[in-house]
Amino acid sequence: MISMKFEKTPINTLKRGAKKASYDKEVVYGILDATEICHIAFTHNGKAFVQPINFGRFENKIYLHGAYSNRMTSKLIATKEVCLNVTILDAMKLTRSAFHHSVNYRSAVVFGRVKELISDEDKLHGLKCIINHFVPNRWEHCRPPNQGELKATRVLEISIETASAKIADTPPSDNKADLELDYWAGTIPVKTICEYPKPDMHMKKDVKIPKHILDFYANKK
Amino acid sequence: MISMKFEKTPINTLKRGAKKASYDKEVVYGILDATEICHIAFTHNGKAFVQPINFGRFENKIYLHGAYSNRMTSKLIATKEVCLNVTILDAMKLTRSAFHHSVNYRSAVVFGRVKELISDEDKLHGLKCIINHFVPNRWEHCRPPNQGELKATRVLEISIETASAKIADTPPSDNKADLELDYWAGTIPVKTICEYPKPDMHMKKDVKIPKHILDFYANKK
Repeated sequence: MISMKFEKTPINTLKRGAKKASYDKEVVYGILDATEICHIAFTHNGKAFVQPINFGRFENKIYLHGAYSNRMTSKLIATKEVCLNVTILDAMKLTRSAFHHSVNYRSAVVFGRVKELISDEDKLHGLKCIINHFVPNRWEHCRPPNQGELKATRVLEISIETASAKIADTPPSDNKADLELDYWAGTIPVKTICEYPKPDMHMKKDVKIPKHILDFYANKK
Repeated sequence: MISMKFEKTPINTLKRGAKKASYDKEVVYGILDATEICHIAFTHNGKAFVQPINFGRFENKIYLHGAYSNRMTSKLIATKEVCLNVTILDAMKLTRSAFHHSVNYRSAVVFGRVKELISDEDKLHGLKCIINHFVPNRWEHCRPPNQGELKATRVLEISIETASAKIADTPPSDNKADLELDYWAGTIPVKTICEYPKPDMHMKKDVKIPKHILDFYANKK
């Protein structure tokens, strides 16, 4: 039977804020799927670098793509492992004390094994996951990569080995002694939204916005 | 005279998408200041990790804070250097071809020297920068840290040595041959907004939301 949870190992176990931690696979997947861009850590000449990139997720795998000359994907292939993070800011919490200011957020850290996909079939699967992560069902509504494009695109598959989510979703919290202070305290909710889709300049005037785009917009407005 | 631009070195010079690059200090600062959370790369047992954290910027310095037991801040103090990234997603660009799907964004990568602040005066300055980066002018409108809180908080100062910004702000772009295809192409603008501030449960009913909060909200709604 496949476990519903990621194994807790020294690498993914949260030491600070352990109450906010979740190792539930569906929780981690949900945060990944609500995000367009992840942050990838990699080493180069022994130093740690971080870079943003868009990605796709399908089952327990994450897909990245880039040009063959891309430094980051080359480094990931060389080290064969990766740590990546996605973070969604949900609210700013302002307290009477400077000390207790904080945020509500959903964050996931993933540790995985990196494999470069070689066959056209595997690469197409990875790219389909990336495009459908970008906008659900988009793959069916665009021209698939041709041979030249496929040849120019490197596709990486990351098998998630372990991961953790951290979720803060609580009201602002001051020390009791501070509650009488005359400062404003409260929450400012933060949301990432989409505005109405704008057809590009070459679209024919009478083309309606298709359902998969309207569905995506409806979820994010 | 202080240069208006970060020096281009092998570490910060963009090789891919060089047309989107900027080394202008004000451009990098602008992207940092429009962001609440940055992603920090650090090494632990020779592996690269990435973690989100809120931060402050003042002049050419970035401030981080955390508990003394925090692994990431300990690692940064040990390595004395850091790479961090902030990214703002501005639009999803959908093209007729899967290959040309992309995003508009503003991203900044910073490379800096890390110093732990020791004196109360220096730590208070760093914390003030973090709180005022969180919400401008907030520091004047909350209780400053007391001795116990200050003692419990580690504050790091990052002197920016070099940095680069990468900005994509163009319409979707398909190959000419694809323009006749019957797929929808266009832009879906993405925005991070704030909803109206909610007072916390202990606030007196007649307390008005102060100007610094309303100003912050007006900028982000």
